[in-house]
Amino acid sequence: MNPKINFTPGPSQLYFTVKDHIRNAFSEGVPSLSHRSKKFESYYIDTVQGLRELLRLPSDYHVYFTGSATEIWERLIQNLVEENSFHLVNGSFSKRFFEIGIQLNKKSIKVEVNNGSGFDASLSFPDETELIAVTHNETSTGVSLQLDYIYDLKTKSPNALVAVDAVSSLPYPDFDYTKLDSVFFSVQKGFGLPSGLGVWMVNDKCLAKAESLLSKGISIGSYHNLPSLHSFAIKNQTPETPNVLGIYVLSKVINDMVRRGISNIRKETDYKAALLYHAMEKHQDVKAFVEDKSFQSKTVIVANCGDHTERLTKVLLEKGMQPGDGYGPAKKTQLRFANFPTHSKEQFELLVDSLI
Amino acid sequence: MNPKINFTPGPSQLYFTVKDHIRNAFSEGVPSLSHRSKKFESYYIDTVQGLRELLRLPSDYHVYFTGSATEIWERLIQNLVEENSFHLVNGSFSKRFFEIGIQLNKKSIKVEVNNGSGFDASLSFPDETELIAVTHNETSTGVSLQLDYIYDLKTKSPNALVAVDAVSSLPYPDFDYTKLDSVFFSVQKGFGLPSGLGVWMVNDKCLAKAESLLSKGISIGSYHNLPSLHSFAIKNQTPETPNVLGIYVLSKVINDMVRRGISNIRKETDYKAALLYHAMEKHQDVKAFVEDKSFQSKTVIVANCGDHTERLTKVLLEKGMQPGDGYGPAKKTQLRFANFPTHSKEQFELLVDSLI
Repeated sequence: MNPKINFTPGPSQLYFTVKDHIRNAFSEGVPSLSHRSKKFESYYIDTVQGLRELLRLPSDYHVYFTGSATEIWERLIQNLVEENSFHLVNGSFSKRFFEIGIQLNKKSIKVEVNNGSGFDASLSFPDETELIAVTHNETSTGVSLQLDYIYDLKTKSPNALVAVDAVSSLPYPDFDYTKLDSVFFSVQKGFGLPSGLGVWMVNDKCLAKAESLLSKGISIGSYHNLPSLHSFAIKNQTPETPNVLGIYVLSKVINDMVRRGISNIRKETDYKAALLYHAMEKHQDVKAFVEDKSFQSKTVIVANCGDHTERLTKVLLEKGMQPGDGYGPAKKTQLRFANFPTHSKEQFELLVDSLI
Repeated sequence: MNPKINFTPGPSQLYFTVKDHIRNAFSEGVPSLSHRSKKFESYYIDTVQGLRELLRLPSDYHVYFTGSATEIWERLIQNLVEENSFHLVNGSFSKRFFEIGIQLNKKSIKVEVNNGSGFDASLSFPDETELIAVTHNETSTGVSLQLDYIYDLKTKSPNALVAVDAVSSLPYPDFDYTKLDSVFFSVQKGFGLPSGLGVWMVNDKCLAKAESLLSKGISIGSYHNLPSLHSFAIKNQTPETPNVLGIYVLSKVINDMVRRGISNIRKETDYKAALLYHAMEKHQDVKAFVEDKSFQSKTVIVANCGDHTERLTKVLLEKGMQPGDGYGPAKKTQLRFANFPTHSKEQFELLVDSLI
């Protein structure tokens, strides 16, 4: 009834160990566990320590949990921006992040390029910029920014904080977190969990900025403002009753990924992406939407399929594969393929062989 | 390893059908289902229609999903209060709701009574009150307010909106929703689900109030402001990727409760509560914390156990029952017992027999 292989970019295919972890969670009583218990704290610790190891997160970074990455967009603006945020917009999700600044009555500004494009290296930022918001991987278009480009934002605007939306790329990118201030993701993409949990990583500078807004009498929200999140995080707890089952399963999946080896995951991601991009180069009707190779995402690969979109979807579904629709207006002319750690080489080989 | 019967008031014992629903969810592909799919919309519809039937929710009420009930406290203040909210505080949770008003820079005021008490019928409200925030059932103390008292708030302050925290009482109370404006709960208490989902019910007046704040240029938040929640709800969707699995399981548990019959659930709740209160009346060392019977909660029953607290906890654990600790400073002198729809008469009989 359900396709065996789910290539939609999120919610995507579950990490292959998730079902077992949820079964174990039930036998351990996790779904009705108190979030003020020692056992919950141990899962919190496992998740944070696991992330530190998997992503090489520096010690001045902290890890907090929210309901979604959408929530993190809002909390970032609320906690880190008194007036001025600057948004690099190249698709629907980076645009939504910008719009949240406007909705929170900030003087948010944006530079916007066409879908499928990256940004010019000559970009400059007003002196008063407090936060630069950038999307590492645009899930709507399959554009990924190069890491050096992102690091350079801080060089260009040393007084601004840099927040990176890595929702549909982590754990693939090997970020140098010392050149960033906040990175965040949601669990239903690269980590392959059921949706309903956002993970927000911030450094001490972000905490200090939130404290400084608070000391000026500016509201930075309540239970999920940074000082509140932090005051509970140091006790390995959350301010509210969180998605306890999600945090438990995340701790287990991260541990699975640590044991598998992040360098293996990255190499396999590169291999699978190369397979699909190579196939599209040779294909008559299916072409990569992002033409500039330096911007081609490794984790969300978008194919221009034009009139063949419906036919190809049918072909793939018949072979047990669910492609992702094109996003928004591209729904009927593009297909999107997630290339996450749970997707195997064999699944990508089958996909490529089936694109006929 | 885990107690068979969990009486902690939240997260509490799972509703007895939850494990089966989660197993079915996996076989139906729910954990990786797109929140923009028709299938997700059907679960959204099932949940809302089920709630309408279970709770007799009027047609001018709408149902939205959040990450937690704590989030709903914040969203209520953000969306319904320009300046003045009035809070009835009689425990830790009603107090937290008040504090969120202050954190959002509103002129929130409170009337506060001792833990274990209800409020005086002579209470009056300033004319400028926009929102009256009241907690139907204080999870920290086991005080429940009578429904007529809550309805009377609207009579006394007809221009204010009345928001009722029913986190640890629903689905038990038979509210007349026409005498209220917003009611909310989280799923890990009376509904017996894993935590990570809040359910926010509001009437048209709340929507209009949020729109009026927005038209004055006041920020009411972003993705989870009422107009945004509503614009997606009419499509049976959510603004962000929600806890899809949670919404699915909630739809199924609500359906189970509808078939069981809400009047049966209410009668059984009354019976189980009577058993425990009666036992405490006769007990030498264990007494109901809430002395005034008209304020005794049916769904969270708090026992003063004094020096016997540790011993009784041990006795219950040995018999496979997990009592809830007293809240905050009462941790070592009280026990709390959830009386939710999943707790059976037999479990309460065993509990009462074991309180020796």
